[in-house]
Amino acid sequence: MTKPILILIQCQDDVGLVAKIANALAQYRLNIVTMREFVDEEAGKFFVRVVCTGKLENTEELFSALQQSLPDNASIKINPSERKKIIILVTKEHHCLADILIRHHFETWDTDIQAVIGNYSDLEGFTRKFDIPYHYVSHENLSKEEFEDRLTAQIDQYEFDYIILAKFMRILSPTFVQQYQGRIINIHHSFLPAFIGANPYRQAHTRGVKIIGATAHYVTDDLDEGPIIVQDTRRVNHTYTVQDMMTAGKEIEKAVLARAIRLLLEDRVMLDRNKTVVFE
Amino acid sequence: MTKPILILIQCQDDVGLVAKIANALAQYRLNIVTMREFVDEEAGKFFVRVVCTGKLENTEELFSALQQSLPDNASIKINPSERKKIIILVTKEHHCLADILIRHHFETWDTDIQAVIGNYSDLEGFTRKFDIPYHYVSHENLSKEEFEDRLTAQIDQYEFDYIILAKFMRILSPTFVQQYQGRIINIHHSFLPAFIGANPYRQAHTRGVKIIGATAHYVTDDLDEGPIIVQDTRRVNHTYTVQDMMTAGKEIEKAVLARAIRLLLEDRVMLDRNKTVVFE
Amino acid sequence: MTKPILILIQCQDDVGLVAKIANALAQYRLNIVTMREFVDEEAGKFFVRVVCTGKLENTEELFSALQQSLPDNASIKINPSERKKIIILVTKEHHCLADILIRHHFETWDTDIQAVIGNYSDLEGFTRKFDIPYHYVSHENLSKEEFEDRLTAQIDQYEFDYIILAKFMRILSPTFVQQYQGRIINIHHSFLPAFIGANPYRQAHTRGVKIIGATAHYVTDDLDEGPIIVQDTRRVNHTYTVQDMMTAGKEIEKAVLARAIRLLLEDRVMLDRNKTVVFE
Amino acid sequence: MTKPILILIQCQDDVGLVAKIANALAQYRLNIVTMREFVDEEAGKFFVRVVCTGKLENTEELFSALQQSLPDNASIKINPSERKKIIILVTKEHHCLADILIRHHFETWDTDIQAVIGNYSDLEGFTRKFDIPYHYVSHENLSKEEFEDRLTAQIDQYEFDYIILAKFMRILSPTFVQQYQGRIINIHHSFLPAFIGANPYRQAHTRGVKIIGATAHYVTDDLDEGPIIVQDTRRVNHTYTVQDMMTAGKEIEKAVLARAIRLLLEDRVMLDRNKTVVFE
Repeated sequence: MTKPILILIQCQDDVGLVAKIANALAQYRLNIVTMREFVDEEAGKFFVRVVCTGKLENTEELFSALQQSLPDNASIKINPSERKKIIILVTKEHHCLADILIRHHFETWDTDIQAVIGNYSDLEGFTRKFDIPYHYVSHENLSKEEFEDRLTAQIDQYEFDYIILAKFMRILSPTFVQQYQGRIINIHHSFLPAFIGANPYRQAHTRGVKIIGATAHYVTDDLDEGPIIVQDTRRVNHTYTVQDMMTAGKEIEKAVLARAIRLLLEDRVMLDRNKTVVFE
Repeated sequence: MTKPILILIQCQDDVGLVAKIANALAQYRLNIVTMREFVDEEAGKFFVRVVCTGKLENTEELFSALQQSLPDNASIKINPSERKKIIILVTKEHHCLADILIRHHFETWDTDIQAVIGNYSDLEGFTRKFDIPYHYVSHENLSKEEFEDRLTAQIDQYEFDYIILAKFMRILSPTFVQQYQGRIINIHHSFLPAFIGANPYRQAHTRGVKIIGATAHYVTDDLDEGPIIVQDTRRVNHTYTVQDMMTAGKEIEKAVLARAIRLLLEDRVMLDRNKTVVFE
Repeated sequence: MTKPILILIQCQDDVGLVAKIANALAQYRLNIVTMREFVDEEAGKFFVRVVCTGKLENTEELFSALQQSLPDNASIKINPSERKKIIILVTKEHHCLADILIRHHFETWDTDIQAVIGNYSDLEGFTRKFDIPYHYVSHENLSKEEFEDRLTAQIDQYEFDYIILAKFMRILSPTFVQQYQGRIINIHHSFLPAFIGANPYRQAHTRGVKIIGATAHYVTDDLDEGPIIVQDTRRVNHTYTVQDMMTAGKEIEKAVLARAIRLLLEDRVMLDRNKTVVFE
Repeated sequence: MTKPILILIQCQDDVGLVAKIANALAQYRLNIVTMREFVDEEAGKFFVRVVCTGKLENTEELFSALQQSLPDNASIKINPSERKKIIILVTKEHHCLADILIRHHFETWDTDIQAVIGNYSDLEGFTRKFDIPYHYVSHENLSKEEFEDRLTAQIDQYEFDYIILAKFMRILSPTFVQQYQGRIINIHHSFLPAFIGANPYRQAHTRGVKIIGATAHYVTDDLDEGPIIVQDTRRVNHTYTVQDMMTAGKEIEKAVLARAIRLLLEDRVMLDRNKTVVFE
């Protein structure tokens, strides 16, 4: 069986876009298996994700055909990198990292983990069990700029599609973030936009909430304000200490981050201003 | 603003169906707003639900154009009845009926409730508060055949799209069911296929389950075996008596039935053998 | 069968409180069916809810016995009002009100609804169907003080345990709130503390959240800051318009408010500083 | 800080049990932090789980004091083994095993994993990464009796509190099960009692359910009929293939099994006929 062909298009909305795309594909004898489209009417933007079967002999020709039939400046991707590469940044907490390494180890996901980088060495031994390089880059006695320069030096020796902040507890500067625009994903330990900032579980405990949550989002300059990919919540009650909330929260964090990564690896997430379109 | 045009198609799967449909629509200058399609590969069947905008001057012409471009025996519906009519059958429990009547009364749903038919008179006064006809058809001292004849007599004086069994506690005969093939919807007070048959909450209590649920499904000859439209569940624990499970269950039942009815009224459910395709 | 006896105690924490209470009850030959207790260690406070069976001949004697064995200033309630009285405040939205009136009408809850008060007359006809008094108190052309005086005049003609703000869309002054300290319950249409303030669904849509929620809470001087009783959430996605979020949100709002009211009617909620202890 | 003292009691129900227990504890100057009790009225049985603080100098004396004040044949446990030992049985699927080994490795749980036993060798390398013994006991070319004898031989070289069937895909004989009565825990890949037997995801797919689930339960002679400890569910839809259901199901399976194991390790589960009392 040939692998299906994946096409992602994002452009200004217009009449007849589905027909134009469907025709271009039919012309190349590609059969549409699934087509998911969305129009953001406020922004006048059109998004589509198409899965086709068939034999695509000349990707560039199809690209040109699509480009000619679509509005100017359309973003068209045909078979974006199929096996994505990721770099993981961690601090001391293991739960998200372990979850990702296990899925990678058993090939649940179609991905290459290029390296794990930690600002502590706590998770080095564990990471090495899975034959993944671990780079220990301490932030101690360094300015943020110096620390980020060292991070960048490690990161830039690898090709990668995404940097995953798997409970990386240092705030990154706008300079760092801009460098990897649209490629940094964070797991935030609250149900954003509630409890922005430090110690969200402590905040949640003080406020007496009955539900806690976690959020996987793109990282942008505005801390905790990036486009949200996945969120989930679970009930807590008055008997939960801050520690109990953290314990319960870790289960949500790792599940939410895993779901977000899977969606990214399968090219199911598209950016739409400060939001995401997620074709699940 | 003109109302959007809704098109539902179901046919044998084939190469290029999306292109064919998109072209037919483009030819009539209809703009696709949302297109949801599904291929049941095991059954070789194609399902699509399209919402378009534009000015459709001749529905029959579009129907012919679609019919000519699609495989034989394709089922094509253009703007199926927009404001559907329903008949509700009840026994004594009020929770599902009340939920439906409230939504109808405040026009949350685009539907006409033609009548409520009950095999007890308990819910008559309540129904009449909302100016809906109530027909009391007792099953007492009647054979199943005689009872169903009387039901049929009441039902058949109305036009209707769906008969909703809103906790109607009599088992209907295959003869009755066949008469209204594909138009009877039931809410079953268990998470099917668990606890088929009588007293599901009693069964659930005896078994010591930690979750209870409810199922909205089409009624077919095989009792409790019809295509499932919506299911939902919630947690229970060892402190729940049978009565507590019933109380908790009623909340799920009414929510599940309401969701199923909304999906049917919006033409989001298509039958696929003994299953449903639900374009939510 | 005699009705069970309900005892609620709240006091400074100390060694041996459970034994002291259990002994006092044993002395009066009351059998403990359920005892739920909680210690807020940070605040050094003890909370207990006991359900007993037996024949309580002299409530005052038991009260004294408990009082003598417990720390000073203990709050002790024996059989608090069994059938609580509520007043409902509404604006134009029907979903929470209808849900409450239906449960009351069919005696799902052990409560008396004394009156519904609305700052519009939209829900008057509906309320009267259920033989509940409706008072229309417009806020138009009135200062907040004048408006609240008129509200108070209506409220104060009734005995009541709780005022339920069932989508009452006027902000109440601290003066008004203090008057009914600990007895006003609100349903807030967001997952507090996210989206405090006006138009939470609009805010949620702009932020691109993937989950929306609702919160039932006590009303205190600090708007949206009162102790939380119940919260719940559900998933949304990029296809939801603000209107879709509101529609989905209404289902959560009414379910959350109904759960909170049931807990209050069954005396399962105790106030602990700015939080609640909920013995579900 | 001294470790809290945990007391579990199960006996015939009677008047004044809570007072008797509270008094016995007060006499030994133990302070009750949490007391959870449950009466199964149908069975006339009383269950309690008490957490106390204080200095327990003579466990046997307290045991006698409790025994004398409680009905005959009361089961009384004071500080049951605090760090429980478990043995894990697996076949080829890694997800539950990996989840357990990670929690063990990072000391999330207070437990010793004595060994992993597999009827295939697939998971041996992975297990050994965590320095846990792996015994490969093939069932091939062996009668069930011979196979189980070999299993027993491996198991019996260890002390253990529980045997966890972490996706162990061989059906165990009543003889084997009786040998470890009340100590074998299974994760079943369906929402029991739905889809008993082989290939539950295939069955679920054929039936067209909209929710799938998993069940952690004690293993008894009646296959799939043992007391249920934890269940959970999640939504699926018509687009899920059998494979998709399995993938989604694995996430539930590992979460449900992890929750059940945590409850067992913390002595929060008590057996009540064919059900469980779970003091969460």
